[in-house]
Amino acid sequence: MVKQYSIKLPALGRGFHLVTDIIIQQLGELPDQGLLNLFIQHTSAGICINENADPTVLHDFESIFNDIVPENLPYLLHTMEGPDDMPAHIKSTLTGHSITIPITHNRLNMGTWQGIYYCEFRNHRGGRNLLATVYS
Amino acid sequence: MVKQYSIKLPALGRGFHLVTDIIIQQLGELPDQGLLNLFIQHTSAGICINENADPTVLHDFESIFNDIVPENLPYLLHTMEGPDDMPAHIKSTLTGHSITIPITHNRLNMGTWQGIYYCEFRNHRGGRNLLATVYS
Amino acid sequence: MVKQYSIKLPALGRGFHLVTDIIIQQLGELPDQGLLNLFIQHTSAGICINENADPTVLHDFESIFNDIVPENLPYLLHTMEGPDDMPAHIKSTLTGHSITIPITHNRLNMGTWQGIYYCEFRNHRGGRNLLATVYS
Repeated sequence: MVKQYSIKLPALGRGFHLVTDIIIQQLGELPDQGLLNLFIQHTSAGICINENADPTVLHDFESIFNDIVPENLPYLLHTMEGPDDMPAHIKSTLTGHSITIPITHNRLNMGTWQGIYYCEFRNHRGGRNLLATVYS
Repeated sequence: MVKQYSIKLPALGRGFHLVTDIIIQQLGELPDQGLLNLFIQHTSAGICINENADPTVLHDFESIFNDIVPENLPYLLHTMEGPDDMPAHIKSTLTGHSITIPITHNRLNMGTWQGIYYCEFRNHRGGRNLLATVYS
Repeated sequence: MVKQYSIKLPALGRGFHLVTDIIIQQLGELPDQGLLNLFIQHTSAGICINENADPTVLHDFESIFNDIVPENLPYLLHTMEGPDDMPAHIKSTLTGHSITIPITHNRLNMGTWQGIYYCEFRNHRGGRNLLATVYS
């Protein structure tokens, strides 16, 4: 059985954001066993799983990703939408655009320290669209 | 219900290539609701989702990935197959070897600007094999 | 149909480890057609697919990942758990925390040279927990 939900992520600003609760609130009752796929319908934002406890981790994610993919690289061609644009495309491929999470006993079966990150790589953006697909 | 399709990607040369249409043409009718998993059966090529409109994005992907994973790093041990080989393994893990895309109303439900990228990291390669699995 | 298995990965030390056989041995009989999702329930270890033949590839993966995400970056805030901790979070997002592999004729349908990597990014760790979900 397949169920789909359209989820709106609010505008949270450039950076990495823990959105586990925002997502769970927008899903219906989960099945006893199954999988949840979350898919972000954009090319300059990503979704991934990481540490859910210390806010400095989110801060360090932003710093390190800016080191791995610097802005204003002199050889870039796709620069018309600003210096944050092309790095945002690369960063979103590094984090990925979808994650798949096991469901067990009607709950997301993540590890104790895992949460869902919405990764915003553009400087000025409104909300983002996610598609959630639950299969059981 | 699960349906599988074996898809052949043509030899397109080193770089990032938009292959959304090539893939859709090789799938049968899609279900009303479900998911498509695409899995590339190689370790020096990848598959991911990114911008589908401006060809310079594909060019910049190649440049930035070459910066993140340079060739001829002096400490490498796995060098017998040429300087592009070990970087290709790393790059394919950074893009990933499979993607999962929601299907809604018999179509891939990607965002307006999203397309499927086949990422070829070797200098001289023939075609590549993809497995498509549709579940509904 | 959905079946789930809890899999324990033994403590193998920091680095990239080929664990295809360890995982297959802990799964029951696979269906004729379907997908296997493997999900690692941690934020400083990853799981991915790459080359299964030459052990020097595993060694070079460790070296290159250490180059992409160096330890002791001066601007980091999340440093209390040691210099390997924050880089481990980043590296695990670069490899990813789950993979999905097609099943065909009761076997994982990976390419000839593909194997499953367990990526341990911490210096001193016990075993790790994986959840395997088979759907058909």
